[in-house]
Amino acid sequence: MELTTLEAIEQIKQLKARYFRLMDQKRWDEWREVFTEDVTAVYHGVPGSRGSDTLAEARYHGRAELVAQVSRFLAKGISVHHGHMPEIEVTSPTTARGIWAMVDYLRLPSFTLKGYGHYEEDYVKEAGLWKIKTILLTRLHCDVTCA
Amino acid sequence: MELTTLEAIEQIKQLKARYFRLMDQKRWDEWREVFTEDVTAVYHGVPGSRGSDTLAEARYHGRAELVAQVSRFLAKGISVHHGHMPEIEVTSPTTARGIWAMVDYLRLPSFTLKGYGHYEEDYVKEAGLWKIKTILLTRLHCDVTCA
Amino acid sequence: MELTTLEAIEQIKQLKARYFRLMDQKRWDEWREVFTEDVTAVYHGVPGSRGSDTLAEARYHGRAELVAQVSRFLAKGISVHHGHMPEIEVTSPTTARGIWAMVDYLRLPSFTLKGYGHYEEDYVKEAGLWKIKTILLTRLHCDVTCA
Repeated sequence: MELTTLEAIEQIKQLKARYFRLMDQKRWDEWREVFTEDVTAVYHGVPGSRGSDTLAEARYHGRAELVAQVSRFLAKGISVHHGHMPEIEVTSPTTARGIWAMVDYLRLPSFTLKGYGHYEEDYVKEAGLWKIKTILLTRLHCDVTCA
Repeated sequence: MELTTLEAIEQIKQLKARYFRLMDQKRWDEWREVFTEDVTAVYHGVPGSRGSDTLAEARYHGRAELVAQVSRFLAKGISVHHGHMPEIEVTSPTTARGIWAMVDYLRLPSFTLKGYGHYEEDYVKEAGLWKIKTILLTRLHCDVTCA
Repeated sequence: MELTTLEAIEQIKQLKARYFRLMDQKRWDEWREVFTEDVTAVYHGVPGSRGSDTLAEARYHGRAELVAQVSRFLAKGISVHHGHMPEIEVTSPTTARGIWAMVDYLRLPSFTLKGYGHYEEDYVKEAGLWKIKTILLTRLHCDVTCA
């Protein structure tokens, strides 16, 4: 492993740290900067209007849609998201992929959720900065309480 | 700290990430590859047949026994395991030890557990790959609910 | 990013790991070694005598006061603290700052707390060892149950 590989791994860890922190702090103008413009995101296990009986899948195409939908979804509540145990593989000087374990805790008007799963992601380096290009969130388990 | 030391630390972090992820995904054929053949493991705070009154200790000798017992224990439920805050010390080009904080969440037919503790481990590099050689899990606290 | 920068980042991660582990293990003589003598710490969201209605702020000046107060606060209970998703910036060979997501779980005689927030910290290198110089803990959310 070369120095530039270890540097890329650390930079991608800090990229994902900003993804989580800026979302939970609702700093959406900064949050958008962690993504490529053409980012695609698939989140499994999103509670629907009837709570835990309708865990659904959300798909977003492009940074504008992703930021608009996630900021709207979280606007009326509190979120806590953490990533754990990264497995980051640098596949070229400007591409990488990663797996993260995750925990999320959402307190929204219609439900409270504690969820557990894994992210699988692709990263690209654009103009010297690593960005998230694709996101897939799968779930091990969710505990959902309807309001 | 030399580049090879930082590389070893990152490789051991990814080794432990596979330990957690492949267990929770029940991918036992891949999980076994994270251990040496002679691995020994001691897990404190394993609920017994009567739930929280009988938190016991599990000891496994050798990879075959470890994989057989853990896969059987988790077969009928859901597990989520995360490691945090690694303190990894590389003691030679082929040996290292580490401490990890841990959280586990088990939903099994007879009980649900949320546990907190620390792993102390030894690692060895075999044929170019880091493996887990010894595991000791101690507990700060467990919240156990019997079914 | 140079090798010495990556080394400093790893050393600061292990410093913060000792901060959490030695506190939860109540090893106060070792815990004090992670701080500069003039450390200042501000912790938001500390439950007061009437529980969740009185989440307050604790301010400590100097290592002696910090260790005395935190060890007294935690003496009669169990604590679990974990840091996640570090964003560490090395600003000179002997200074750095960092942001950490955090989770804490406190079980004390008068209340149980599960809390979520972020640390913002400054680090300095003294006699070859990184130390914590300033701590600011802010909260996203706390779930508090009064006894």
